[in-house]
Amino acid sequence: MSVTLEDIAGIIGARISGDRTMAITGVSSFEEAGPGDLTFAGDSRFLSRLPDTRAGAVLVPNTYTPKASDPADLLFSPNPKLDFFKVVAHLFPQPSLVAAVHPSAVIGTDTVIGDGSRVEANVVLGDGVVIGSKVHIMANTVIGNQCCIGDHSVIKPNVSIMDLTCMGSNAIVHPGAVIGSDGYGFTQDGAGHAKQAHTGRVEIGDHVEIGACTCIDRGTLGVTRIGSGVKIDNQVHIAHNVKIGDNTLVVAQVGIAGSTQVGKGVILAGRAAVTGHITIGDHAIVGPHAGVTASIPPHDIVSGMPHMPHKTWLKVANIISRLPGMRKQLQALEKRFSQMESKINTSE
Amino acid sequence: MSVTLEDIAGIIGARISGDRTMAITGVSSFEEAGPGDLTFAGDSRFLSRLPDTRAGAVLVPNTYTPKASDPADLLFSPNPKLDFFKVVAHLFPQPSLVAAVHPSAVIGTDTVIGDGSRVEANVVLGDGVVIGSKVHIMANTVIGNQCCIGDHSVIKPNVSIMDLTCMGSNAIVHPGAVIGSDGYGFTQDGAGHAKQAHTGRVEIGDHVEIGACTCIDRGTLGVTRIGSGVKIDNQVHIAHNVKIGDNTLVVAQVGIAGSTQVGKGVILAGRAAVTGHITIGDHAIVGPHAGVTASIPPHDIVSGMPHMPHKTWLKVANIISRLPGMRKQLQALEKRFSQMESKINTSE
Amino acid sequence: MSVTLEDIAGIIGARISGDRTMAITGVSSFEEAGPGDLTFAGDSRFLSRLPDTRAGAVLVPNTYTPKASDPADLLFSPNPKLDFFKVVAHLFPQPSLVAAVHPSAVIGTDTVIGDGSRVEANVVLGDGVVIGSKVHIMANTVIGNQCCIGDHSVIKPNVSIMDLTCMGSNAIVHPGAVIGSDGYGFTQDGAGHAKQAHTGRVEIGDHVEIGACTCIDRGTLGVTRIGSGVKIDNQVHIAHNVKIGDNTLVVAQVGIAGSTQVGKGVILAGRAAVTGHITIGDHAIVGPHAGVTASIPPHDIVSGMPHMPHKTWLKVANIISRLPGMRKQLQALEKRFSQMESKINTSE
Repeated sequence: MSVTLEDIAGIIGARISGDRTMAITGVSSFEEAGPGDLTFAGDSRFLSRLPDTRAGAVLVPNTYTPKASDPADLLFSPNPKLDFFKVVAHLFPQPSLVAAVHPSAVIGTDTVIGDGSRVEANVVLGDGVVIGSKVHIMANTVIGNQCCIGDHSVIKPNVSIMDLTCMGSNAIVHPGAVIGSDGYGFTQDGAGHAKQAHTGRVEIGDHVEIGACTCIDRGTLGVTRIGSGVKIDNQVHIAHNVKIGDNTLVVAQVGIAGSTQVGKGVILAGRAAVTGHITIGDHAIVGPHAGVTASIPPHDIVSGMPHMPHKTWLKVANIISRLPGMRKQLQALEKRFSQMESKINTSE
Repeated sequence: MSVTLEDIAGIIGARISGDRTMAITGVSSFEEAGPGDLTFAGDSRFLSRLPDTRAGAVLVPNTYTPKASDPADLLFSPNPKLDFFKVVAHLFPQPSLVAAVHPSAVIGTDTVIGDGSRVEANVVLGDGVVIGSKVHIMANTVIGNQCCIGDHSVIKPNVSIMDLTCMGSNAIVHPGAVIGSDGYGFTQDGAGHAKQAHTGRVEIGDHVEIGACTCIDRGTLGVTRIGSGVKIDNQVHIAHNVKIGDNTLVVAQVGIAGSTQVGKGVILAGRAAVTGHITIGDHAIVGPHAGVTASIPPHDIVSGMPHMPHKTWLKVANIISRLPGMRKQLQALEKRFSQMESKINTSE
Repeated sequence: MSVTLEDIAGIIGARISGDRTMAITGVSSFEEAGPGDLTFAGDSRFLSRLPDTRAGAVLVPNTYTPKASDPADLLFSPNPKLDFFKVVAHLFPQPSLVAAVHPSAVIGTDTVIGDGSRVEANVVLGDGVVIGSKVHIMANTVIGNQCCIGDHSVIKPNVSIMDLTCMGSNAIVHPGAVIGSDGYGFTQDGAGHAKQAHTGRVEIGDHVEIGACTCIDRGTLGVTRIGSGVKIDNQVHIAHNVKIGDNTLVVAQVGIAGSTQVGKGVILAGRAAVTGHITIGDHAIVGPHAGVTASIPPHDIVSGMPHMPHKTWLKVANIISRLPGMRKQLQALEKRFSQMESKINTSE
């Protein structure tokens, strides 16, 4: 690729400071950008490092005042990161979807596939499935009976979507994900662990992204629900009957136990674990590696295992490695005290 | 669906208190049940909330004494939860298995498929495989050479079962699970990490359930063994040569390192990690998120990282967030002590 | 199998102490070896247990001095473990790869498959893929566009390799692994989480092993790079733009967040979590279950959450369960001190 800085400014309507005719030949992160690359400096961390960049051009906030020392040409934007990725998407457009159903695909009865959709090789669709328009189902994915997939969704290869799963439009499901598997539900019958009947389902909103090898169990009886705009990273486990509110972020390797309700706009950071049958309030934040053992009110920020206010955790995290010192200090103090006590007792 | 309360009572032989002709139109959890729904109140937690239920009918223990305030009709059972799921299974029967081998399935040589079994689209079976009767192998699953799958087992889509894996009857393997992969075994050869030859296998008993995206490695030389009645949740990692005793429960995201022996009737709660080459005694319980670093005797209950007696952990969990306060307290005490000490020394 | 001890000595050029004609009928771990089995005692832990072995023959270090009490015949080796697995590989040779492309495989345009390679049933290869020679791609695996797989690599069943992934020779990728999926990258656009364009790729060196259900995300813009000789266990998550140096070991269930750089010869033990945008120095070791929250210099050994020097962690791990005792001790000391203080004040 090679476009002028003026071309790029045109894509996002940005003001230019520098050589409008400069050739931009690539896009890159701030650290890796070289001559000819466009990058972005979204906040003060990066703006302070502007003199170090080797990039050809940098997207900076509208509020930034250019300096003589700036080594690169600048583009001004109200949201540099967002506009940078708009440029990337414009310069590297997704190939347009070619509608087709591969002859090796196996399609059940009463299953309908919307206009403009593409079903790749070895895809297996069950009975009574409703696939929207311009949906892309990639190779070797299996979708069970009575499922629905909304318009413009992309289901990547080797995904397993089990019976009764319904997802909205613009979903992206990454490879190896499993949606609608039976939850972990057994009852003691004297002889052992009797499997409970699982008759529930999974409902997923619009604009949801589901990471590679992430597993979402169906409701045992009712529903496991993922709200619209929810973004789930890789290797996340979401148990039966969990409800997740709109626009919540669930980072990699998180686990959420059965029947827990996670609010809207929540962030569950990487590797966090959430116990079952609790509520995480709207806009709460759970730190990485945290273990949440009880309900959390809206807007709370917690970390640690077991969870505590994040501010407390910052102090605790600073103390844990000093525990051996604290223990010695305590023992030494006790010894000094006992010596003083006996001295005083003797002197009495 | 719509059946009378009397019909339901008939399924499980339960005594009725209320309107025998009442129409039951659904089954639901206690929290979500509405008019017309059957639910269950298995223990005092739920029984105390009986006045709040909106359910049409509730399965309660035989020992429960009906009250005038009970808003719902009641059914009496020695085990309400177990009987409730019996009713669910009766009202929502699994469709009976239609024996068939899909024309797209690829079957190796010397492979036999028992009577009444169903092999779905794009299934690949290796050589010398023995599939029992009434087995259901779902779409796009791959089974390697010299494997065996016992009668009445269900292998869901996109499962990978590697060479020499043998499982008993009534197994359920959820989508994306991997059984019989090579373990993590390397030897330094001076140049780097030389791969050890892996010649072992996996043996799985009867009535075992294996969760979505769970991985069970083959023995390096000998066997990785999963006992009968073991129930394994999603995203569990079981390394080479692990042995798990009968009826043990392994909850989601647990990891068990190589050659560890887990006893019978053990519970490994969610996200627990167990180190290699140790023994977890029969009926031991390992708490959620725990890290087990040494062998545990039978019937022990442990939690925390590193693990400790669960009762100790309950106290520790209560103290961790107070460490900053303890540290301040210690420092303040030391200061007070030093002041007193110097005061005493001065006064001497 | 049955071979003489002399035959085995010949495979690895080992010196024999004992009956050269003895029949060896199996290979086994030290603990499980029985009469007729060959095993190995690689270090003093096992050598001290030699009198207990039931093995027919044991590979021991060259430096070992035989004793009258040794119950088994001995073979001497400079590296018993390495030589033991050479014997195993020799006695249980992998079946030689039969070159073939299964008729059900779906091959894109401009895709080339090298001499002697095997492509099994239902494999789907995209456009512009370059498969080396003697590569084995097992059933139901999907490989996207513009990928390359080096000579002698083995891709097991149900693997998903996405566009632009390139791996070197002698790779082994276990079932269910996902390579080249989109990373977790969103930008707030006011309405919600806007997906960033992902245009990056994954580059993998030679002799890399990737475990079952392990996920490696593509670079957002640039590259996610796995060095040569890197061995990755099951269920590992490697986020976008991570770089891992040569010969590093990544054990099961590890998670590495975006843009982190892991050096050469590093060990990340099981379940360790590493935050994003940091550097783990060459030959550093991160203990099991550790949470690394900041960069680590080369050769450092850390454990705990948050991480600390491993030696400190060993002390901390010993103290955590004693926290309730420490708290009581502190409170008791404070009480004693206050009593003494008031006594002294009174006596003044």
